[in-house]
Amino acid sequence: MIILQSETLLAKLIQCVPNFSEGRRIDVVKKIVDAIAGAADVRVVDWSLDPDHNRSVVTFIGEPCAVRKSMLAGARAAVELIDLNKHTGGHPRIGAVDVIPVVPLSDVSIDEAIALGHEIGRDIAENLHIPVYYYEDCALRGHCVNLANIRKGGFEGLRESGLIGDRTPDVGPSELHPTAGAAVVGARGPLIAYNVNLTSNDTHIARAIASKIRKLRDSGEGMPGVKAIAVLLKSRDIAQISTNITRPDLVSIYDVYSFVEREAKALGVEVLESELIGAIRSEAVITAAAQALKCPQLTQERVI
Amino acid sequence: MIILQSETLLAKLIQCVPNFSEGRRIDVVKKIVDAIAGAADVRVVDWSLDPDHNRSVVTFIGEPCAVRKSMLAGARAAVELIDLNKHTGGHPRIGAVDVIPVVPLSDVSIDEAIALGHEIGRDIAENLHIPVYYYEDCALRGHCVNLANIRKGGFEGLRESGLIGDRTPDVGPSELHPTAGAAVVGARGPLIAYNVNLTSNDTHIARAIASKIRKLRDSGEGMPGVKAIAVLLKSRDIAQISTNITRPDLVSIYDVYSFVEREAKALGVEVLESELIGAIRSEAVITAAAQALKCPQLTQERVI
Repeated sequence: MIILQSETLLAKLIQCVPNFSEGRRIDVVKKIVDAIAGAADVRVVDWSLDPDHNRSVVTFIGEPCAVRKSMLAGARAAVELIDLNKHTGGHPRIGAVDVIPVVPLSDVSIDEAIALGHEIGRDIAENLHIPVYYYEDCALRGHCVNLANIRKGGFEGLRESGLIGDRTPDVGPSELHPTAGAAVVGARGPLIAYNVNLTSNDTHIARAIASKIRKLRDSGEGMPGVKAIAVLLKSRDIAQISTNITRPDLVSIYDVYSFVEREAKALGVEVLESELIGAIRSEAVITAAAQALKCPQLTQERVI
Repeated sequence: MIILQSETLLAKLIQCVPNFSEGRRIDVVKKIVDAIAGAADVRVVDWSLDPDHNRSVVTFIGEPCAVRKSMLAGARAAVELIDLNKHTGGHPRIGAVDVIPVVPLSDVSIDEAIALGHEIGRDIAENLHIPVYYYEDCALRGHCVNLANIRKGGFEGLRESGLIGDRTPDVGPSELHPTAGAAVVGARGPLIAYNVNLTSNDTHIARAIASKIRKLRDSGEGMPGVKAIAVLLKSRDIAQISTNITRPDLVSIYDVYSFVEREAKALGVEVLESELIGAIRSEAVITAAAQALKCPQLTQERVI
């Protein structure tokens, strides 16, 4: 961590969080991670398999041109190793390399992140012959801002409808890649992917809590920017509230943890544990600790 | 914080945590802090007044030679501004500059910290004409390892007994400085000064909890290296369990917080808040957050 933080002083840093449609064959995911780590001077912060979603998320960090090289190498490995025709899993997806969020981390403007996203998209379209859509801050068309619109119906739905009308890709061929489908690239602000697992497999309870978070958010009364869904982790037979905290400046992981803990208790279950996917900023950890310990003096200036 | 952490890559860093016998006159403490900050290239991480103890603790960080210069400047200001004959407060003390712990922070061995402590002691003895004792890792005599032995009876007691026998200073004049008394310098490992305040002024409860922590520690069954005392914060009319966590590798601030919270609840009171004195290492914050959020994946590698 210390080395990373010194790098932030010297370098423009981008965080890239590609999602691949493989969460069961560890050797495949490992090869993709190796391709990313080996192609350029990037640091793989985290990678994990999710057998229930049959999906993996790799988090890596580097200067923009290194991220671009590593991302193409990772996508190339995924296209070689993943056949979407044989893929099943709980998560909607349209590609072997399904989604590639680009996040400005330090000394990089959102415009630079958007430009990098567009370069990564062109790289994948031209070199791997994959149709690419741009979403969130990279979106060139309004309906593409929301990822859910692009992924609607998944690979199979897209194959049936054809890449026409609203579903025309932003760059690349006008047909799906036969095994790797399509890819979605976007830029967005930092986000914390944070899940809370219950001591129960009762998805009604998890759904009730996730729904309460969304209602609070939509009412403007709390949980701003928190996306929450309920998931059953079949492999472990436990229910999970899976969240994305998109405004980590306003909502901390402790806010989400303590809300879920309180609601779960009211419904007669406990929090088993919580999970962090990918990386988190130091400030967000300090904030969470300060809240959990009721220690307002625990601020960044004190942490060495 | 980021800059500090980059410095840790480049520099030998020492943390120095002098305790001054003034906790009520903010202008006096501010002048001492300014003297420390202005004398050399050091970073003052924290300083705070404690009116109940009539004492202040300054935490600053820098390379050894910078710390030496700043410490002498701070001691000189304290000697000019503080008259122990007029000092009252809850805390035992023998000097205007009462205790000077030197802590190796990065790329510094304990031997280098000890050598620096001895230099600081000689500086104060020779330049300010103050008798100096060495304690903890700087101690040259066995009975001086424990600070409590040196401070026994305080300034007034020492003035009565005279600086003879066991109470002969290690360096400096063989008489107390008429207004600034004596000083104690030592080296020790990093320590977290951490207090938990209760929603009650019942010192019996605070004493019971502090005693339970000490008993656990002494029995070897828990709380290794945690020093705990009960304090009444008269200015706020609340009871406090004041701790020093001397083995932060074994006991976290969350361990202490949650122990006090549980014991307090059992005795019918709540934790109002907790307090951090001085600085804390990033690892210690991450550990505490991971425990509080039941999130074992929250490790240093993930924090950027």
